[in-house]
Amino acid sequence: MARAHNFNAGPGALPDSVLVELQAAVLEFGKTRAGIMEISHRSKAFEAVLESAQARLRRLLGVPEGWAILFQQGGASLQFHVLSLNLALPGEAPAFVDTGTWSTKAYEEAQRLCQPRKAWSGKGNAYTFIPSDAELDASAVAAAPWVHYTTNNTIRGTQFHRVPALGKPLLADMSSDICSRPVDVGAHEAIYAGAQKNLGPSGVTVVLLSPWALARQAEVKAARGGLPPMLDYAVQVENNSLYNTPSTFGIFALERVLAWVEAGGGLGPMAEKNTRKADLLYSELDRSPFWRCPVRPDSRSQMNVVWRLPTEDLEERFLKEADAAGFLGLKGHRSVGGCRASLYNAVEPASVAALVAYMRDFEAKNG
Amino acid sequence: MARAHNFNAGPGALPDSVLVELQAAVLEFGKTRAGIMEISHRSKAFEAVLESAQARLRRLLGVPEGWAILFQQGGASLQFHVLSLNLALPGEAPAFVDTGTWSTKAYEEAQRLCQPRKAWSGKGNAYTFIPSDAELDASAVAAAPWVHYTTNNTIRGTQFHRVPALGKPLLADMSSDICSRPVDVGAHEAIYAGAQKNLGPSGVTVVLLSPWALARQAEVKAARGGLPPMLDYAVQVENNSLYNTPSTFGIFALERVLAWVEAGGGLGPMAEKNTRKADLLYSELDRSPFWRCPVRPDSRSQMNVVWRLPTEDLEERFLKEADAAGFLGLKGHRSVGGCRASLYNAVEPASVAALVAYMRDFEAKNG
Repeated sequence: MARAHNFNAGPGALPDSVLVELQAAVLEFGKTRAGIMEISHRSKAFEAVLESAQARLRRLLGVPEGWAILFQQGGASLQFHVLSLNLALPGEAPAFVDTGTWSTKAYEEAQRLCQPRKAWSGKGNAYTFIPSDAELDASAVAAAPWVHYTTNNTIRGTQFHRVPALGKPLLADMSSDICSRPVDVGAHEAIYAGAQKNLGPSGVTVVLLSPWALARQAEVKAARGGLPPMLDYAVQVENNSLYNTPSTFGIFALERVLAWVEAGGGLGPMAEKNTRKADLLYSELDRSPFWRCPVRPDSRSQMNVVWRLPTEDLEERFLKEADAAGFLGLKGHRSVGGCRASLYNAVEPASVAALVAYMRDFEAKNG
Repeated sequence: MARAHNFNAGPGALPDSVLVELQAAVLEFGKTRAGIMEISHRSKAFEAVLESAQARLRRLLGVPEGWAILFQQGGASLQFHVLSLNLALPGEAPAFVDTGTWSTKAYEEAQRLCQPRKAWSGKGNAYTFIPSDAELDASAVAAAPWVHYTTNNTIRGTQFHRVPALGKPLLADMSSDICSRPVDVGAHEAIYAGAQKNLGPSGVTVVLLSPWALARQAEVKAARGGLPPMLDYAVQVENNSLYNTPSTFGIFALERVLAWVEAGGGLGPMAEKNTRKADLLYSELDRSPFWRCPVRPDSRSQMNVVWRLPTEDLEERFLKEADAAGFLGLKGHRSVGGCRASLYNAVEPASVAALVAYMRDFEAKNG
């Protein structure tokens, strides 16, 4: 059975060429005389993998000098907690821009640890658009030590197409669009992202911390009377992500994915490819009233494209037949229903073109 | 370059046949038309993997009815924190049996969350033996809601060859010997283990919780005013380890390793094989005064065999030449030096026999 067009929302598609490299390394990695999963995380061979992954991220994203690059476990969901634990004092009121499920969870975790405020919430509008800076609650922003936002919402199919300029330190969850386009890392103070969309397999979480974040962490850590080492950014930085055994295979896979991105010319060409794919699908959605994209055009995500059909019966038929025809993962998130195509880096334009052709065919038969 | 004899302390050797299965699944897993890393953790195909992994652990270890079986991230190091966070009230004094580094860390994490006591410490004797029940501090045990111990110490090469019988709920870190021999799970209330020794790649942590532990967790959680969901055993149980995206590849690899253990007849035959390997190596250590095993015979580990040579110069030469001769990972832990061979499940008796032959040869030349 062949590999199908993979539109899974995450874990999602990985590049074929990387998978072939991983296959080889599973049994024999480099000159180690062992598989990649069978060597010590403290071996020179693995240290080289770790350092290469850091160097590639630094180059691709333009991570400024002085920033720490960590590989953690637990996904963005654990970072929702760790973030406020390390970067907010108990009495402080960081501001959260609530663009859906993941932003809400980050806010809720902050509630255990400090006095966060929502600078905006899209809940009343079913999270169908991204706010402008002017729409945010200026008093919440003014009172905040930092502002948190989620660059891309996988469930609602919305995405920030700018970095907010609020005159406050910015913290961002970039789980579902990191390395899909150039980003001004230096306009932020902390960035985190689960790997399982654009970077590799699940089980690895990238955390980027600026000198400001590291200084603030020391202050917060002291105020909290110390932190558990596994949840302490300073301990993780001091130990270069090797305080305990990390997901060695996951970091290796991520390093290979980043090598593939660099070999393709980096984030500029990647962004062009991603824009081309998204344009192709959104054009189809806008072409016919048979499809309906609920997201305001200026807020549409290039990573996760969501849409509805005229009826839920038709949606069900579409999803079932699409799966049989070799288009995987088109079902919308269980919390919202409908359809969704995730167009992460490893999804090729040919897959999107094939999907659009299939959609036209489906409409002709059912429209 | 071929695969060498792998004595790494963890991540360590995995069975060749499992690695070949993983290679295939990286590109195409079952009928999913995608690689194992590219499918949703909420897909039927992955749910089947998760359930199979749980069922195999339940069968192999004889996990009693009513126990929860979780797959978490963060290793035993995160569990050191999570354990006391979930199972100890702030004023309580759980007792810890300190047989070395990992026990000490579990104790130190408890100090942030409750009032733990050490029921025993091997520090004064360089952790060269495992205490009997009678050697433990009876008053510390009597005052404790539970007693924590580490079944095997990877660094010092010591191992419990019995389950302590203390009349108290027992919690155990079994990271380095789980599934290496039959164990009376029902004599414990909670067990946890990083996967990277006997179960699979790093990045997966097994947690087993008895009905007693689950009931106690509810009490502690209420007393603590709730817990962050990622660190909350109840949330992880309710969501069957799928509160967020787990390490899907890691769980799949673990499931395949457990299938290999079952195909080999389970933990009885595995324990026989492990005893045979350990006996072979300890016999060599006891044969000649050229080698010196610092561990008291009744406390010697079948998983991690540690020894010294007459001088550090000879140790250095031995390690260097052994590596060149195809024996990997024989260097002792950086905190203690010397030599160590880890004889996890996937290490074949032939590798140990080859090592012993090599050692005799080395002694003949250098003794």
